[in-house]
Amino acid sequence: MSFLTLLDYASVLVFALTGALVASRAQLDIVGFAFVACLTAVGGGTIRDLLLDRHPVFWVEEPTYILLAVGAAVIVFFTAHRMESRQKWLIWLDSFALAIAVSAGTGAAISLDKSPVIVVMMGMATGSLGGLMRDVVCNEVPLVLKQGELYVTCTMAGAITAIGFSEFFGWPDFSALVACAVVCWTLRAGSILFGWHLTAYKSRPPRS
Amino acid sequence: MSFLTLLDYASVLVFALTGALVASRAQLDIVGFAFVACLTAVGGGTIRDLLLDRHPVFWVEEPTYILLAVGAAVIVFFTAHRMESRQKWLIWLDSFALAIAVSAGTGAAISLDKSPVIVVMMGMATGSLGGLMRDVVCNEVPLVLKQGELYVTCTMAGAITAIGFSEFFGWPDFSALVACAVVCWTLRAGSILFGWHLTAYKSRPPRS
Amino acid sequence: MSFLTLLDYASVLVFALTGALVASRAQLDIVGFAFVACLTAVGGGTIRDLLLDRHPVFWVEEPTYILLAVGAAVIVFFTAHRMESRQKWLIWLDSFALAIAVSAGTGAAISLDKSPVIVVMMGMATGSLGGLMRDVVCNEVPLVLKQGELYVTCTMAGAITAIGFSEFFGWPDFSALVACAVVCWTLRAGSILFGWHLTAYKSRPPRS
Repeated sequence: MSFLTLLDYASVLVFALTGALVASRAQLDIVGFAFVACLTAVGGGTIRDLLLDRHPVFWVEEPTYILLAVGAAVIVFFTAHRMESRQKWLIWLDSFALAIAVSAGTGAAISLDKSPVIVVMMGMATGSLGGLMRDVVCNEVPLVLKQGELYVTCTMAGAITAIGFSEFFGWPDFSALVACAVVCWTLRAGSILFGWHLTAYKSRPPRS
Repeated sequence: MSFLTLLDYASVLVFALTGALVASRAQLDIVGFAFVACLTAVGGGTIRDLLLDRHPVFWVEEPTYILLAVGAAVIVFFTAHRMESRQKWLIWLDSFALAIAVSAGTGAAISLDKSPVIVVMMGMATGSLGGLMRDVVCNEVPLVLKQGELYVTCTMAGAITAIGFSEFFGWPDFSALVACAVVCWTLRAGSILFGWHLTAYKSRPPRS
Repeated sequence: MSFLTLLDYASVLVFALTGALVASRAQLDIVGFAFVACLTAVGGGTIRDLLLDRHPVFWVEEPTYILLAVGAAVIVFFTAHRMESRQKWLIWLDSFALAIAVSAGTGAAISLDKSPVIVVMMGMATGSLGGLMRDVVCNEVPLVLKQGELYVTCTMAGAITAIGFSEFFGWPDFSALVACAVVCWTLRAGSILFGWHLTAYKSRPPRS
């Protein structure tokens, strides 16, 4: 199995866990858990593949991805009540999923020799869109939009790291993608733990 | 006209009616009715076709689908006020649309010789995503997420029925797809009428 | 640069400005501004290209679109607080973006010799879906659904104008697309300024 495929599997697994956790907050049944888990798990990568015209889409023709996501959903369904704080698990699992998915998206685009800007876009899309769909469908405030936290910024920084090391310093893809995941995750973890953030736009209150 | 094409037409028609009914709840004008009707009618099948790389997408190059959906929207615009209970019509029409669309999605994937897991996914996606888009865009609580009801479960059961009869018992596709629609609709109707449901996830209230 | 390409650039630029303005209402940071700007700017055109199987998607392989959208976001981030009324700017910029994007969508479909119904659908999709994504993601009431305003109607009228002049009167594409944008924008402006609207569906209050 290539490193890129491995990243896809890891990202599917961890995103599926976050999807199932959000399903538990919405008090769905077990099929609902599986549905939200699958949507979250393959959402970002599917859009990446459609945009890059990579066919078949990574999980179509390869049922293992779906079975993995469903398995993750089932496990969460039967164990989530034992967790001290589901919210905490959700936030941290999401941070790992984010880092892995950005690597997976960036790697796919690099392997197709796309230009740096597009590589960064694919990394950001793969990382953030699955979680965005999860939150929009389940009526949660999208993590993408949480104020005072780094989220999209982490995906961007990770993707820029990958393309920087790969394109400009000639690092092999493997190392560049690991660096990408480390940078993305570190920023996200710093934001969760220490409140790292960028200045948000503050305006006078609107007059109308 | 092949049976698969017929299923696509039927699903477009009935989903368009549900879209127009939701538009009536949002008090849109006649063009808004047509817009929501089209989105709902072709949404699920479009995603199926994009995922399966079936080009052209079923309604592109074949304007009849769109004209059918627009016609349905116009009829609902002028008649919805006569209905005893629009909500009841919506729920029941949606149940038929669901059953037909699952058959249409499953059939398309079977005709492309996809593996069973992917066939089930395509059935579920075609059945549920059009209605999901309708509800997200119109700010309704997605039917997919209603607690204490079977919805995604019906699409899954229908799709599994189809692939089971087709793959393992060697039924002809036509019979397998009819069985699929019957199973899906029966479960959904049972859920609406008798409250059939799966146990939902119940947790202690979150501590944080 | 062809006229169609120019329309794509103009639509990306103006939609990006509206995306950034919505980001300012959500008080995001500068990367959030860029994210929402890009989503809004390329959303409608991306769906058009996926539906029409035009590959590569217009902005993939051509980083300039993304850089333009990011540039627009940065400018709005540093200048939005100076605007008298961000809401007014948003509404008016959106009206221009709508008109340009409908032309871009219609033009792309005409250049591929699609049938009139599909040309109209592509115009409407390109015009309205970017803004719809922006509003759904940022939790705003979609402009598409605002009661008592013309919005989707403008995109439809514009697209019908284009196909009418091009197909039935044999106008060159350039003139037909300009007429399309003028009709779309005039209707929208009339709706904003003078309250032009179609009769909305009014019902007795639901009984259930």
